[in-house]
Amino acid sequence: MTERSGVTLPAGFVASGVTAGLKSSGKPDVALVVNEGPRMAAAAVFTSNRVFAAPVKWSRQAVADGQLQAVVLNSGGANACTGPEGFADSAATASRVADNLGLITDNVAVCSTGLIGIRLPMDRLLGGVDAASNALSPDGGALAAEAIMTTDSVPKQAGSSGDGWAIGGMAKGAGMLAPGLATMLVVLTTDADLAAEELDTALREATRVSFDRADADGCMSTNDTVILMASGASGQSPTPDEFTQSLTLVCQDLARQLIADAEGAHHEIAIDVVGAASERDAEVVGREIARSNLFKCAIFGGDPNWGRVLSAIGVTDAKFDPDALDVSFNSVMVCRGGQIGEDRSLVDLSGRSVTVTVDLHAGDSTATILTNDLTYDYVRENAEYST
Amino acid sequence: MTERSGVTLPAGFVASGVTAGLKSSGKPDVALVVNEGPRMAAAAVFTSNRVFAAPVKWSRQAVADGQLQAVVLNSGGANACTGPEGFADSAATASRVADNLGLITDNVAVCSTGLIGIRLPMDRLLGGVDAASNALSPDGGALAAEAIMTTDSVPKQAGSSGDGWAIGGMAKGAGMLAPGLATMLVVLTTDADLAAEELDTALREATRVSFDRADADGCMSTNDTVILMASGASGQSPTPDEFTQSLTLVCQDLARQLIADAEGAHHEIAIDVVGAASERDAEVVGREIARSNLFKCAIFGGDPNWGRVLSAIGVTDAKFDPDALDVSFNSVMVCRGGQIGEDRSLVDLSGRSVTVTVDLHAGDSTATILTNDLTYDYVRENAEYST
Repeated sequence: MTERSGVTLPAGFVASGVTAGLKSSGKPDVALVVNEGPRMAAAAVFTSNRVFAAPVKWSRQAVADGQLQAVVLNSGGANACTGPEGFADSAATASRVADNLGLITDNVAVCSTGLIGIRLPMDRLLGGVDAASNALSPDGGALAAEAIMTTDSVPKQAGSSGDGWAIGGMAKGAGMLAPGLATMLVVLTTDADLAAEELDTALREATRVSFDRADADGCMSTNDTVILMASGASGQSPTPDEFTQSLTLVCQDLARQLIADAEGAHHEIAIDVVGAASERDAEVVGREIARSNLFKCAIFGGDPNWGRVLSAIGVTDAKFDPDALDVSFNSVMVCRGGQIGEDRSLVDLSGRSVTVTVDLHAGDSTATILTNDLTYDYVRENAEYST
Repeated sequence: MTERSGVTLPAGFVASGVTAGLKSSGKPDVALVVNEGPRMAAAAVFTSNRVFAAPVKWSRQAVADGQLQAVVLNSGGANACTGPEGFADSAATASRVADNLGLITDNVAVCSTGLIGIRLPMDRLLGGVDAASNALSPDGGALAAEAIMTTDSVPKQAGSSGDGWAIGGMAKGAGMLAPGLATMLVVLTTDADLAAEELDTALREATRVSFDRADADGCMSTNDTVILMASGASGQSPTPDEFTQSLTLVCQDLARQLIADAEGAHHEIAIDVVGAASERDAEVVGREIARSNLFKCAIFGGDPNWGRVLSAIGVTDAKFDPDALDVSFNSVMVCRGGQIGEDRSLVDLSGRSVTVTVDLHAGDSTATILTNDLTYDYVRENAEYST
C-alpha cells in the first residue's frame, strides 16, 4: 500500500497508472488523474512550438473554459505529426475516459509522450484507459508518476502544504531529451479553492521561473504541457501570493528533478546571472550560456573556461560593459572585469553540481537558468535511436 | 618553389608565413599579406560579438577609412579579453610591420587566433613579424595560409579569375570551434581596380550568403574577421555585379572548406530551405535546424529523424503551415505535408555529405545553411582542453 503523494497528495484527487502495452519494455504507460471536486477549476500552459502534437491541440480546447475534471496521459507515443487522424485519436481517448467515469468529454485533457510521427495503437491505449479508470485510488499518485516515464530513471513527484491546503505534482522527462521524444509533461493538483483565473495567473508566474528556466539542450518539444487542477476540497482559499509562492516551490522542485535526471548528463549546472539591468536581461544571458555547446563541453571536461562564457554573453543584447564582466565557477572568480581573475586551478568541477555566476554589473536583477553538460552519453543517446 | 595561389593569386600582392614560436607545436604561426598597389582600397567585416578581441578593435579603426596596405596575422593566441595591454600589443604589432616596410601604421590590420584570455608573447611575435617582413614573396600565399592554421587539418585557399582580373583568398578554422579558440580569419585579395565602397558592398553581399551561413556549432567567436584588399594592379574595373558574383564564389568555396574540415565532425550537412516567404525566413529556419543538437546527433547516428527537423522549424517565426511541411534527407521525402512520407529506410546517410531539404510551401525564397553533425569527437575536442 503506497501513501498519498504527488498528484494525490491534495484532497479531492484520485489517480492510477497501468500497463497498456504501448511501451515495448512492458512498463506502465497509461496514467489517469481525476478531480473529484467539489470544484473543477483548471489552468494550463503548453509548448510554444508551432509544430504541436494532437493532444496539445485537444487539451488547449479542453481547458479554454477554465474547467477540467480529469487528465489522461500516455507514454510510448507522442501522437505528434499524425494529422487529423491523430487528433481524432486524442478525442477518442478523452471520450473513453468521460464514458467510463460519467464526465464531460470536453473536461478531459489528454497528454502523450514518446516517439513523433507514429500513430498510437488505439486498441491497446483504450484498453489501458479502461484499466486506469478501474484502478483510480487516493494512493495512485506514485503509480501515475511511474506510468508517464519514458527515459526517466526515476519517477518525479513533489508536494507542498499550506495552512489546511496542499499542492502536489508529478513530472516526466525534460532534461536531456531522449531519442526522438516529445517530452515534458507535468500535472499539478491542489485542494485549495481558487478560481480558474487565479490558477492561471499563479501557474504562469510559477512556470516562468521554473520549467521555463530549465534548458537542458535548447530543444523545445512538440508536446510540453503543464496542467494545474484545483478541487477546492480543503475549503481553504489562500491569497494569490501565498498560493503562487507555494506553487513556485513545487514547480522548481520538479524542474530540478528533471535536470538532475537528464540522461547522458554528468553535471547539473545552475547559471546564476546577477547585476542585470532587468530580469529579462538576466534570463537572456543565462539562456545563451546554457545553449553554448562549447561551454557545455567544457563543464563535461572539468574546465572552468570563462572565455566561452564571455563569448556567449557577447552575442546577447543585454546591457553590460565587456570590461566589467565577472565570471565565477563554484565561487572562484576566474574572470574579473572581463580579464583573467583567480587561478583557474582553484576551481573544482568534479562534483555533479556546478554553479556558474555571472555578474553583469548593470543593475540589480537576477535569474537562474538550469542546464546540463554536453557529454558522450548525450551524443550516444541521441545518435543511436535508429540502430 | 610554390606557385602563386590564395592571397597572392591576384597581381600586386606579396605574402609570407613564418614560425615565431607562438605555437607549442613549432609550426608556422605568423603570416603577412601586403598590398603593393597601385591602389590600397579595402573593406572588412568583423564578428558581431560584443565581446571582441583587441585585434578586432584595432582593425576596425584601421579599415574605417577604406584603406589598408597590409594584414598581419598570428595563430597561437587570440589576444581576446586581455584589456588595454592587449590592445597596445595589437598596435605594437601593426607598428612593427609599418616600420619594417615603410607603411603607415593605421593602414595595417591585425588578426589573431588561438586561446582567449592570455597575453601574446610579444618578443616572439615581433621577431616573427620581422622574419615575415623579410620573407615576403609573390609565391607566399600558400605559406601564409599554413601559418594561420590552428586545429585546421589542411590550409584553405581559393581563387577565381575574371576577364583580366582575379580574386584570391585564404581562411582558417571555423567549422568545429577548437578548444577555447577564437576562430575564423579570412583574407581576400583582388587586383581589380575598385573603390572601397564598392568593395564594402560586394564583401557584405558575399559574406552574407557564405560565411554567415556556415554555422558549425552556433557559437560566435570574439575574433572573426574577413578582410578584402584591392591592389588595382590589373587595371581592370569589373562591374559591381561581376565582382560580387566572383567574390561570392570564392567566399562560398572557402566556407565549404571550413565546414568540411570541422574537427570532430563526421558529416557536412547542407540544409536547403526552399519555398520560403522570404530569404530571411529561409535563413532563420535553416539556422534553427543547424543549431538543434538533437538533429545534429541524429545525423551522426545515420538517422533521418524528421521529427527533430519539424520541432526546430516550429520554434521559428517563419511563415508556414505545419501541415504543409515537406522534409527530405538526401532527396528521400520522409515527411510530406507534416506527416510520415517515404520509408525512412530508403535514406542512406553513410556518406560524409548530407543534404536536408525543407520545403515550407510559403513562397519562392531559398537559403542554404552549412553545418556539421554532433559527434563524440566534437565533445572530446571541446571537453579535453584543460587536461
